Amino acid sequence: MTQKTIVLAYSGGLDTSTILPWLRDQYGDVKIIAYCLDMGNSPKPDEIGPWAKKLGADEFIFEDQRDHFARDFVFPLIRAGGTYEGEYLLGTAIARPLIAERIAYFAKKYGAWAVAHGATGKGNDQLRFEHAWAYLIPEVKVIAPWKIWDFKGRGDLRDYMRSKGFSMDEKKRRYSEDVNLMHRSVEGGILEEIGSDYDPDEVNEWVMTNPDKRSNKQVDIKLDFVDGFAVALNDKPMSPAAILTELNTIAGKLGIGVADLVENRIIGLKNRGIYETPGGTVLHMATRQLKGMCWDRPLAMLARFLGDQYGGMVYDGFWFSDARQSLEAFFQHAGKLLTGTVAMHLSPGVVRITHRSSPFSLYSRQAISFESDELDLNTAALGYCKLAGLNQWNAGQRDMRLQRRKTGEAA
Amino acid sequence: MTQKTIVLAYSGGLDTSTILPWLRDQYGDVKIIAYCLDMGNSPKPDEIGPWAKKLGADEFIFEDQRDHFARDFVFPLIRAGGTYEGEYLLGTAIARPLIAERIAYFAKKYGAWAVAHGATGKGNDQLRFEHAWAYLIPEVKVIAPWKIWDFKGRGDLRDYMRSKGFSMDEKKRRYSEDVNLMHRSVEGGILEEIGSDYDPDEVNEWVMTNPDKRSNKQVDIKLDFVDGFAVALNDKPMSPAAILTELNTIAGKLGIGVADLVENRIIGLKNRGIYETPGGTVLHMATRQLKGMCWDRPLAMLARFLGDQYGGMVYDGFWFSDARQSLEAFFQHAGKLLTGTVAMHLSPGVVRITHRSSPFSLYSRQAISFESDELDLNTAALGYCKLAGLNQWNAGQRDMRLQRRKTGEAA
Amino acid sequence: MTQKTIVLAYSGGLDTSTILPWLRDQYGDVKIIAYCLDMGNSPKPDEIGPWAKKLGADEFIFEDQRDHFARDFVFPLIRAGGTYEGEYLLGTAIARPLIAERIAYFAKKYGAWAVAHGATGKGNDQLRFEHAWAYLIPEVKVIAPWKIWDFKGRGDLRDYMRSKGFSMDEKKRRYSEDVNLMHRSVEGGILEEIGSDYDPDEVNEWVMTNPDKRSNKQVDIKLDFVDGFAVALNDKPMSPAAILTELNTIAGKLGIGVADLVENRIIGLKNRGIYETPGGTVLHMATRQLKGMCWDRPLAMLARFLGDQYGGMVYDGFWFSDARQSLEAFFQHAGKLLTGTVAMHLSPGVVRITHRSSPFSLYSRQAISFESDELDLNTAALGYCKLAGLNQWNAGQRDMRLQRRKTGEAA
Amino acid sequence: MTQKTIVLAYSGGLDTSTILPWLRDQYGDVKIIAYCLDMGNSPKPDEIGPWAKKLGADEFIFEDQRDHFARDFVFPLIRAGGTYEGEYLLGTAIARPLIAERIAYFAKKYGAWAVAHGATGKGNDQLRFEHAWAYLIPEVKVIAPWKIWDFKGRGDLRDYMRSKGFSMDEKKRRYSEDVNLMHRSVEGGILEEIGSDYDPDEVNEWVMTNPDKRSNKQVDIKLDFVDGFAVALNDKPMSPAAILTELNTIAGKLGIGVADLVENRIIGLKNRGIYETPGGTVLHMATRQLKGMCWDRPLAMLARFLGDQYGGMVYDGFWFSDARQSLEAFFQHAGKLLTGTVAMHLSPGVVRITHRSSPFSLYSRQAISFESDELDLNTAALGYCKLAGLNQWNAGQRDMRLQRRKTGEAA
Repeated sequence: MTQKTIVLAYSGGLDTSTILPWLRDQYGDVKIIAYCLDMGNSPKPDEIGPWAKKLGADEFIFEDQRDHFARDFVFPLIRAGGTYEGEYLLGTAIARPLIAERIAYFAKKYGAWAVAHGATGKGNDQLRFEHAWAYLIPEVKVIAPWKIWDFKGRGDLRDYMRSKGFSMDEKKRRYSEDVNLMHRSVEGGILEEIGSDYDPDEVNEWVMTNPDKRSNKQVDIKLDFVDGFAVALNDKPMSPAAILTELNTIAGKLGIGVADLVENRIIGLKNRGIYETPGGTVLHMATRQLKGMCWDRPLAMLARFLGDQYGGMVYDGFWFSDARQSLEAFFQHAGKLLTGTVAMHLSPGVVRITHRSSPFSLYSRQAISFESDELDLNTAALGYCKLAGLNQWNAGQRDMRLQRRKTGEAA
Repeated sequence: MTQKTIVLAYSGGLDTSTILPWLRDQYGDVKIIAYCLDMGNSPKPDEIGPWAKKLGADEFIFEDQRDHFARDFVFPLIRAGGTYEGEYLLGTAIARPLIAERIAYFAKKYGAWAVAHGATGKGNDQLRFEHAWAYLIPEVKVIAPWKIWDFKGRGDLRDYMRSKGFSMDEKKRRYSEDVNLMHRSVEGGILEEIGSDYDPDEVNEWVMTNPDKRSNKQVDIKLDFVDGFAVALNDKPMSPAAILTELNTIAGKLGIGVADLVENRIIGLKNRGIYETPGGTVLHMATRQLKGMCWDRPLAMLARFLGDQYGGMVYDGFWFSDARQSLEAFFQHAGKLLTGTVAMHLSPGVVRITHRSSPFSLYSRQAISFESDELDLNTAALGYCKLAGLNQWNAGQRDMRLQRRKTGEAA
Repeated sequence: MTQKTIVLAYSGGLDTSTILPWLRDQYGDVKIIAYCLDMGNSPKPDEIGPWAKKLGADEFIFEDQRDHFARDFVFPLIRAGGTYEGEYLLGTAIARPLIAERIAYFAKKYGAWAVAHGATGKGNDQLRFEHAWAYLIPEVKVIAPWKIWDFKGRGDLRDYMRSKGFSMDEKKRRYSEDVNLMHRSVEGGILEEIGSDYDPDEVNEWVMTNPDKRSNKQVDIKLDFVDGFAVALNDKPMSPAAILTELNTIAGKLGIGVADLVENRIIGLKNRGIYETPGGTVLHMATRQLKGMCWDRPLAMLARFLGDQYGGMVYDGFWFSDARQSLEAFFQHAGKLLTGTVAMHLSPGVVRITHRSSPFSLYSRQAISFESDELDLNTAALGYCKLAGLNQWNAGQRDMRLQRRKTGEAA
Repeated sequence: MTQKTIVLAYSGGLDTSTILPWLRDQYGDVKIIAYCLDMGNSPKPDEIGPWAKKLGADEFIFEDQRDHFARDFVFPLIRAGGTYEGEYLLGTAIARPLIAERIAYFAKKYGAWAVAHGATGKGNDQLRFEHAWAYLIPEVKVIAPWKIWDFKGRGDLRDYMRSKGFSMDEKKRRYSEDVNLMHRSVEGGILEEIGSDYDPDEVNEWVMTNPDKRSNKQVDIKLDFVDGFAVALNDKPMSPAAILTELNTIAGKLGIGVADLVENRIIGLKNRGIYETPGGTVLHMATRQLKGMCWDRPLAMLARFLGDQYGGMVYDGFWFSDARQSLEAFFQHAGKLLTGTVAMHLSPGVVRITHRSSPFSLYSRQAISFESDELDLNTAALGYCKLAGLNQWNAGQRDMRLQRRKTGEAA
């Protein structure tokens, strides 16, 4: 009989490190492939690769997926204006289908019996991994150790690792962290305390938004867009990943793109998260400016609603669903109008728009100006107001009629 | 025959000043009442009252409506989370139904034949006034001079005034301005140019957000809420108007609450506006925190959609519609869960949350914590993931089946 | 130690009958209360009460809840226009919160340790019961035997009962059935076969819609409404339950209100169901007529969306959620406009409206008539069309400009 | 100077006949082209062509556009599930962009100065024509005689025609009528009376739904679909127009597809309309069955909302808008799953489904069946219920805590 293969989404951290010997304990003579990727999170393959093998992995696969991540996940999300609860820009959520897709690729390639992830049963990531795999590799078993082993918390993991002779020199973290090209998020630990006053700058070591350098420095930037995707920064054509990287640096220094919020997880738990999304915030704002200029009101309103739906699907792990893919077709079509240029003036915490232009612009200075009326809109407005207000006039008549009836007057 | 009465929404500016002698020219022996109110815009009744009479008003009525404005218009709007296109906090739009309501009150009191306003035929305010009056006083005529007189722009108004012997010493404005307790907005004039790079700080003299004083000063504030309305600032019970006023000062100094955008007017024109809404921005953010903590996910999602609808109705002038009033009933009910306290740390351009608490809080540190699982959620998650992902698994099976069929394999 | 009490939702059918001895086997010396109610399903308490005791129940409680069901569940649902996927009128779903509420009442009254239901793990009802109990009695344990016992199907239940000495003389059913004042639904069994041609009249013995009596008989009926609730049928004031009962008879004879559809269960399963909802269909149609006449377009559109949301919450078992209760406040407010009279002409399969009237009617024959134009709407329409079409005109100009650019013409 | 050209949407009826001599009176030496098309309305070009020329047309153009109408307008609308207010299937509205498109084609071809239509200022059609032309031919003038001439009603038109020596032998109509492949609608005249009881069969001479032949005849039909479009009826491949025509005959004889309703016009008027849409009703129902089987719940819910949006855009005349075109991209993508077969059993007023099948079907008899549980869903449901109900459990805990606080118990 052929040896069974398991592909594990491996990061090198405590959880997925522990899973390696645990898988061996649990499933015996299986081939274990530890898969790791760079999404802008600066993994160190030279360190964690050998570490994985020491922990029992038969193979270690590493890929740089920054381009694929920015181009095929982050940029479509931003074009759609997808957010969660209006505030979370989905930096963690949008990375999960990428990881799941790569794992599924290797699972198929190696004819794997199972795939495994290190997400817990209380969080969202389990659903993002497992929904993606349910679609991509429905015939492959999913192993989610946190939901089946007996360890209750990270302390138990450390004990287990020690018992196996592995010592993890992890610095004691005060919270859990996730980093990629789109954002850095922190949650858990001391951040779970939402009711005590504290100094947020003390609790959270800022990383991407670099607060100790917040100053009055101001920067002007310019972004060119084609079909809803940024293609050049300050007149220099760049890849999606390069634009995101560069904007993270520029906007991060000015403390732009911080959110601190209590959000609703997919299951009925509330989570407190802090997000640093400097480059993503700037891209969202610039894209919105193009939409403001190039989409008319009905399209803008519909797209705003659909962006929320799209964002919800990303949050909930339905990237590969027919619904998200159909929405993508909508945004691909509507996105064809989003070609143009946006210039912005960034100062600490504030983004101001200094220039907008597009061949698809619907803005008309001539039409809007107070000082002339070549289109004779003032006269047209007489009729417009009357008909647009007919519902209100009818309701006013109705209420007067009812009032008269109440007070005994003839109707 | 009794003398006809006209009630004019009068601000003392060029447009509504010009309307006074023009009404006299147009309608002859009518009684003209000039109505003016304080909504936080610092009118000078001692100056503009006598001026109105000099211009032909038979009567000048002045009211301080700041409390009514904050309590009955701004605060319900913020409780509902109403915004327009996700960015405009509706400072101008929310003031219009108040003005219309007061004018309608006096129109009824005086048995007026007509009411008049100074809004143009290209803008939104005409619809906000006229829709409100269509409902409140459907039997009263509406006069909108900009839509019927021959003047083409402000130059013509000045010429007409001069011809009447009235000289208006108005300083040459580079744009049009609207100020009240909720915001200051500017639009028109040089702001109509959206395609040239410029220094936004030069173009726009900041007023409410006071940019020349932007500094690294940081302030901590605390807001208490009852039923979705702020009732105390830093432990001091205050009226809605007082809270808004105080927050404008505090947040304004830190440059919080600035938006520069191209928005869609009700009719198909795009407008570029700059908004300063310091206090309103802080109130929106604090209210959202309470919602994040006290509303569950289905309610939060529904309310977000309905807040957009509510905001759209405010923007479009349908404050008095059956639809907006029915939505109010929704938010009154859901708002009963929004009692609690939010503390915030304000620094230049950035609002951070430092404390959230409420008797209605649904946040559970015990449930969310990584370090324990008393509710045994990890095990439950096994079943949850399976069933929540069934759609994806079905779709995956479908596509495998179709793939096999395509490649000639047996299904 | 006090004896533990379990309250079981008991119908007398095979499933809940089997649960009685099984609970005894499983939990030993507990007090078991079998609760049964009449919702229009014609239970026979004199038969199933003694039967429950024979099977091991310590107590049998029976209530006639038809009035409560119609008044406090069905009628609000119809006022809200709540449906599922546009076609299912929610007859089963709307009965579940009533049952859960009554069980919770007795669980509290008797200080019960647990409640139990007979719904399976594949269906929707488990969620409707358990979500309601999670809210109403969060401290009480829920026992769902189908999810924990080893029986695999109904055959196993019969074997178990026989082994206990109980013989259930149930006629072999070809499908599963649910009946109450609102509807009769059938699903399962031979209906699970959706791909073979068959004669629907043979498969399904019609009950509420009585097909063998379908004829060309025609009936005229009249319904009076107050605040969105039907209060009188053919001028006779009647209770909600009485109206529903009577309409079921009248419309059922004409085969009105049949739906045969494949619907999406809450979890990712598709279910084929056949529904007979004669009275509910007529009430829905009559209510819609009142809405058509008394709600303006913005309210009607918003309410249609919210009716779908409301229906979704009923389907999904969130009757007691804050979201549904907030929606109820919306519909209570908007429902105040739904007072009036609707007359209908019923013929086989078809409902025609013959009369609509209401003090809140916004319909104006004077305004609509082709033959006069007292309101001078034709002239007003000139301006209305121009401004309402400005977006399209702008887009047309844009595309001409782009076309010229493409073909090298000067722009 | 070249002669100006006007293209008129001409039907041969009283209104557009009158427009011909009126255009000549009004605009003098212009070239007038009368354009007429067959959309299933059985025009008689041999009669109305010569008549147009007699009335002053310089040219008469006639086209059979039934195929284009069914394929490119009706079928996409049905695939999208587009309706208005849930009941009106948009038979008139969907024909207007076709007419506007053809007129625009000839306006461009002939370099026309103006286009003209016969719709009044109170109705919806003016907006459908003018919005389409605003986009398609923004540089061409639109003449809408009803909004500018002095005639007040049809009596005035007849007087004018008589004065010109033209006698129109039109039979006195009791209402206004519109017929095409999709539907026949009647409105106006005696139908404007919505408050008197009457026999609907007397008032309205049924045409498409042929009521005098309503009988107990029953018919079985089968429809094959590819990508959301019906392609074959009873195994015979047919064009969209042919399928619609044939279904109109079959379903019309059984009185299927009648709606009698008060709807909201675009401007604030309520209109009473009666619609006969036999074939369209059957196609809508069959398409819904495919969606029920092939779209999962999230896609079905989103598409239902978007179908309403799509329907609203068709009703409001925004066929050529960027928003409708972007929605089309959504439905084109989602529509790729709608390939399969639906069989139906039609009896008087009732449509029953007898067969559904599709390679994209997500229905699984194996999964749904009561009698087995191979996927072990019952166990999974334990965890699912717990997590899906967590929000309700949290709210229950909250309310218990508040209750205890109220009654002085320790929390």
